[in-house]
Amino acid sequence: MRIETTVKGMQQLALREKRSGRKIGLVPTMGFLHAGHMSLVALARTRADLVVLSIFVNPTQFLPGEDLASYPRDIERDKDLCIEAGVDHLFYPDDSEMYAADYSVFVEEMALSKVLCGASRPGHFRGVTSVVAKLFNIVMPDIAVFGQKDAQQCRVIQRMVRDLNMPVEIVLGPIIREPDGLAMSSRNKYLSRNERPRALCLRRSLDAAEAMVKEGARSVADIKAGVLAVIAAVPEARIDYVEFVDNETLVPVSRIQRPVLLALAVRIGGTRLIDNTVLASP
Amino acid sequence: MRIETTVKGMQQLALREKRSGRKIGLVPTMGFLHAGHMSLVALARTRADLVVLSIFVNPTQFLPGEDLASYPRDIERDKDLCIEAGVDHLFYPDDSEMYAADYSVFVEEMALSKVLCGASRPGHFRGVTSVVAKLFNIVMPDIAVFGQKDAQQCRVIQRMVRDLNMPVEIVLGPIIREPDGLAMSSRNKYLSRNERPRALCLRRSLDAAEAMVKEGARSVADIKAGVLAVIAAVPEARIDYVEFVDNETLVPVSRIQRPVLLALAVRIGGTRLIDNTVLASP
Repeated sequence: MRIETTVKGMQQLALREKRSGRKIGLVPTMGFLHAGHMSLVALARTRADLVVLSIFVNPTQFLPGEDLASYPRDIERDKDLCIEAGVDHLFYPDDSEMYAADYSVFVEEMALSKVLCGASRPGHFRGVTSVVAKLFNIVMPDIAVFGQKDAQQCRVIQRMVRDLNMPVEIVLGPIIREPDGLAMSSRNKYLSRNERPRALCLRRSLDAAEAMVKEGARSVADIKAGVLAVIAAVPEARIDYVEFVDNETLVPVSRIQRPVLLALAVRIGGTRLIDNTVLASP
Repeated sequence: MRIETTVKGMQQLALREKRSGRKIGLVPTMGFLHAGHMSLVALARTRADLVVLSIFVNPTQFLPGEDLASYPRDIERDKDLCIEAGVDHLFYPDDSEMYAADYSVFVEEMALSKVLCGASRPGHFRGVTSVVAKLFNIVMPDIAVFGQKDAQQCRVIQRMVRDLNMPVEIVLGPIIREPDGLAMSSRNKYLSRNERPRALCLRRSLDAAEAMVKEGARSVADIKAGVLAVIAAVPEARIDYVEFVDNETLVPVSRIQRPVLLALAVRIGGTRLIDNTVLASP
């Protein structure tokens, strides 16, 4: 596996691969890799001739007061995992390689990015779309793989690709969970031993919603009451949002008709966790 | 010459050319072509294996109340000029091909685009950077050629390319003028027969500034007084701005030391004209 730390080096490498007709797959990450990331690498493998994984803890998508400084990092372990997974090229730039001191250009999505996590983290998605646009220009992927765990991020990036005519196909990988159901996330590391079991209320509340829909429930008000009840059973859980939105447009809905994204953000102690599922009437 | 009206068709064509190793040059225009545009085509020819010229009157860079509806158009004449100039592919999409009804993604430069024309036309450069980003993704050029007549646009696009790591080299073509000195512009068509000679005050004021610098003047206050005097000699000319800024950062300067962009926007009757020159102490 080749490790590339410069933009120029990565671009030259990508151009060479493209000219040779090989299809490039990109898995953008912030590192501290887990089985969720590795499932995206495996998915990229099936769709591309070579896989580039990027590790960059992107400062512009963290708000003041968020966990930029403490975000977990373990580059040596990440490298081993990448080699094991058959990653061809690791792109691992530092901040100054990615952002000039007088950096002044942003890519901003103005609709889908303003709800859900965008409402509680204003500016977050502007940082995400900007850095993903940069990574696309640097790695020149034919396909790029993102995890459905960050459902809103997936929709916002798909919209960016559509509206800016980026020549990249976005491929989504399913949520990968711990054996007990907790969605894998680098931020799970923040959970204390006491908090860890409490975090299961996210998945449990999604299970409850899925069961209700299976049994015929279609009213979002009814299903939401069920979801809130499951989370309320854990007194230490503080809800940031529980939203039912159209799975494509992210517009709030009141009935389950077309596929509906049920998305949650819940704080367990100091840790903000997200999870989601897509509900559809059969 | 091939005329391509769809994004998908243009992208497929570009990919094919890229894979065959040919270097693509792009000349983005709003049509109603004149010798200024054609000089950019000739410049592109010297730097690329094939030349794509795009014609798209981009609605998102016009402000409400500006001349979007009346912007001059003559596609048949434009086609003939392109064939004559040896353009390989004309990209000529319509509005609905370029913008979905629920379009929601913009590329915005936050520093250089806020002064000069950006101050009097807020939102204009956001439209420019967004559509140029789209054109780059659609045409996939190795080089793109812009005219120095739109000096600020050139700087803003160069900054976009730098900050988003776009794999495109920006090439600038010099201002092309009518025999009497008026900078060529599609908007010159708006000038009435009486207004046309009055419009020469722009170039004359730049000449005056260049002459003063040649004679040793270095104080921007002194040179600006000279520029304003020339324009004031035409009572029908209304100044939008006369600015002396660093040629790279567009930050106002008070002395001619590093290269200084002297940029003007002046209204002659209902027509807003721009012109500029770069002043440098020898």
